[in-house]
Amino acid sequence: MNALALPPAAPLETRRADVAGRLRECLPAGAVLVSGEDLRPYECDGLSAYRQTPLVAALPATEAEAAAVLRVARETGTPVVARGSGTGLSGGALPLADGILLAMGKFNRILEVDPASRTAKAQPGVRNAQITEAVAPHGLYYAPDPSSQIACSIGGNVAENSGGVHCLKYGLTVHNIQKVRALTIEGDAVEIGCDALDAPGYDLLATITGSEGLLVLLTEVTVKLLPKPQVAQVVLASFASVEAAGEAVAAVIGAGIVPAGLEMMDRLATAAVEDYVHAGYDLEAEAILLCESDGTAEEVAEEIGKITEVMRNAGSTGFRVSGSEAERLKFWSGRKTAFPAVGRISPDYYCIDGSIPRGAVSKVLRRIAELSAHYGLRCANVFHAGDGNLHPLILYDANVPGEFEKTEEFAGDILELSIEVGGTITGEHGVGVEKINQMCAQFRTAELEQFHAVKAAFDPPGLLNPGKAVPTLHRCAEYGRMRVSRGQLPHPDIPRF
Amino acid sequence: MNALALPPAAPLETRRADVAGRLRECLPAGAVLVSGEDLRPYECDGLSAYRQTPLVAALPATEAEAAAVLRVARETGTPVVARGSGTGLSGGALPLADGILLAMGKFNRILEVDPASRTAKAQPGVRNAQITEAVAPHGLYYAPDPSSQIACSIGGNVAENSGGVHCLKYGLTVHNIQKVRALTIEGDAVEIGCDALDAPGYDLLATITGSEGLLVLLTEVTVKLLPKPQVAQVVLASFASVEAAGEAVAAVIGAGIVPAGLEMMDRLATAAVEDYVHAGYDLEAEAILLCESDGTAEEVAEEIGKITEVMRNAGSTGFRVSGSEAERLKFWSGRKTAFPAVGRISPDYYCIDGSIPRGAVSKVLRRIAELSAHYGLRCANVFHAGDGNLHPLILYDANVPGEFEKTEEFAGDILELSIEVGGTITGEHGVGVEKINQMCAQFRTAELEQFHAVKAAFDPPGLLNPGKAVPTLHRCAEYGRMRVSRGQLPHPDIPRF
Repeated sequence: MNALALPPAAPLETRRADVAGRLRECLPAGAVLVSGEDLRPYECDGLSAYRQTPLVAALPATEAEAAAVLRVARETGTPVVARGSGTGLSGGALPLADGILLAMGKFNRILEVDPASRTAKAQPGVRNAQITEAVAPHGLYYAPDPSSQIACSIGGNVAENSGGVHCLKYGLTVHNIQKVRALTIEGDAVEIGCDALDAPGYDLLATITGSEGLLVLLTEVTVKLLPKPQVAQVVLASFASVEAAGEAVAAVIGAGIVPAGLEMMDRLATAAVEDYVHAGYDLEAEAILLCESDGTAEEVAEEIGKITEVMRNAGSTGFRVSGSEAERLKFWSGRKTAFPAVGRISPDYYCIDGSIPRGAVSKVLRRIAELSAHYGLRCANVFHAGDGNLHPLILYDANVPGEFEKTEEFAGDILELSIEVGGTITGEHGVGVEKINQMCAQFRTAELEQFHAVKAAFDPPGLLNPGKAVPTLHRCAEYGRMRVSRGQLPHPDIPRF
Repeated sequence: MNALALPPAAPLETRRADVAGRLRECLPAGAVLVSGEDLRPYECDGLSAYRQTPLVAALPATEAEAAAVLRVARETGTPVVARGSGTGLSGGALPLADGILLAMGKFNRILEVDPASRTAKAQPGVRNAQITEAVAPHGLYYAPDPSSQIACSIGGNVAENSGGVHCLKYGLTVHNIQKVRALTIEGDAVEIGCDALDAPGYDLLATITGSEGLLVLLTEVTVKLLPKPQVAQVVLASFASVEAAGEAVAAVIGAGIVPAGLEMMDRLATAAVEDYVHAGYDLEAEAILLCESDGTAEEVAEEIGKITEVMRNAGSTGFRVSGSEAERLKFWSGRKTAFPAVGRISPDYYCIDGSIPRGAVSKVLRRIAELSAHYGLRCANVFHAGDGNLHPLILYDANVPGEFEKTEEFAGDILELSIEVGGTITGEHGVGVEKINQMCAQFRTAELEQFHAVKAAFDPPGLLNPGKAVPTLHRCAEYGRMRVSRGQLPHPDIPRF
């Protein structure tokens, strides 16, 4: 590696001029942004409570240009934060004041569709829904469907290992990609994964998936495609308590059914959406479940029969089965608009993303209700129930002093509760800057050390998205002391070895 | 790390006495083997053409004992080769003359079965089939079914990322495990993966799966279980050429069918098995396909209808559908005994394991026939066709001087042919010592360097199974020179960047 051109302590404006000048030597005019106005669109991602103007933004359009940006980063010792569509919810694309924001929006082409092997090769800036649109003429689709799928990029999906309503049956991003092409910080192009059943060597595709931009810069993603199901139907079932709905979820899975989606919403959430889109939800119910079946007409008819039987036995106070595609979409419209609907009943809301074992659903929902009372903040529960992926929405008002801080504390409690019951602090949104403290509760020192060793194996100078996803051991020590001073034991209920 | 007790150049017998003495301080009597007779059972795995007596064999029974073995290895700078049941086919458990053979056979307990979460936690020495036996009372099973499943261990399955006849529908080992517990060479116990949907931090579970014992020592494996399908039926279809059978495979997949298994055998293979187990195969056919459907009675009836229609349109010269469970098992008995059946018609055979894109099946089978003529060695083709996973069996006689060397060259050509058509040198058997040269053809220098960096991140002293799976760059340079001297270009048809 070349020696640094400037000491890291050089004033920010000097660094900005130097880095921008070097970038302009390798990128076309207009592809290097430095003014405050130009940088504004990049100052945050979907976690808009955190904002930071980057040193400079670079918008490469080719792999060679992207490699040139990494070379400038390496030669000047400047960190790099890559960004897709900026829809991420954990601040993974939050810029660094002294870092290059590398925007991948110009990598927006689908390079290849191969219906025989059921794969498509896309540049990382391609939107998730764009892939399904491109392959629809072949009767195929790309299964992972985050609610931001119209906007979010496939590169961002890989970086965050995104899920969606249908990942219960079809898996997360990691289960639906076949190969990536990427640049290392040293500028080597590597291909990870393969076009055949199994690749020899270490399986690094999963390591890169969900690595939140800390290991490599993606330049191509080959996704797996599925045949579009012929038919889909959804059961909308009401329950007299969230506990009863939680037990019905366990009963569906326990009956050997793998629904295409299995979602729960509590009364606060259904009231908000019913007012907004009139999805036809039962407003008397304490909780509703949406349970979808897809496949051939025969498969769906049989599975819907089983689902309704299980719901009945599990104490559902009433259910309806979608009688048409229009009704199915209407039933889903409530779930799909839950976040904006909640936005209408509160000045602000904060979406939490944790995963718990299915058996713990009732316990966790009860504790969330207690925490809600404790903090004096309402909480609407929307929930990929089949997966155990919680999305509690804490309702708050950012204009009330101290209320955001209380919200963050409430959120942290929910995440640590997830760990306590044997779950994790992420489902599909990643760690980013948002949950970096809770990583200290999730993992033991030896495990964090292993993560840092893997980071160093991919990115020896530590320039790719530093400070996100994996906390330093120093940070965890600080966090532990802070918790103890608040009267909390470090790592409650986590076995120590 | 402590200083080495002995210089690495100390005579083997001195090292043996020292290492055995230290091991005896931490393991019970009988758990440390040093005599030639005691070490004999460990001198090879399923790749019996390669044999080596280890320095010493250690048989720990607990995680603490296993950690003690790793400590002795670390303190004396002695390499460690872990071994499950020794059924591996690529020599991954081949001992080192100066290394500890760490036999995990005493880790043979199933620790937990959780029908609600559909998981089982097993020690790594538990046999694959033992898991299915233990969970059968709950109507569940463990899907990956290597043909050695009665004997092979779940730890070995994880180390090699094993597959089986049903992995077309249900995935490889990596898709069917949830979590592992492991010891690092430093002796830290780490848990990788989680009991919930998604784990934060880098996804190292896939990295460890298929890492052939080079990264960590497994001490527990939590597997995912599936509900046992109610019904299964198989179609046995005949074809007038292997090309026609290959095209039928593509047609089945192209029709959106995901069979539970889709296997091909050529005429030499069917003749061998028919003579042996009388499975009822059509001896006039140049190739046969076995295509299985499983699920509920309705699903299977519908899918079998589609499969037979596709087979007919693809030019099948005749097919039969199993009419009973007994007939289904009879049809499969030929495929399942293909290897021993071929063993009856030749003094020796060598099984190759490569993966190719499904579209390349016809081309590859034609080239294998040409190579067979070129080398004057017969080759029976048995093939996980749906997955593109080749298992050509080269027939040879080890007593004919030079014939094994010719066989190895033929095998190498098949593997490099797999790479040439966009495939890989492994399907489910791993690299081990067997295919280490072909890794030089599969990967570019930057990719091999990345593998070495990951190895160093897990195993800084490089003591876990050194010399397997990932070649040194020096070895690849040597191999490249050898190929050029044979008139072959290095890396034929591999794009260079």
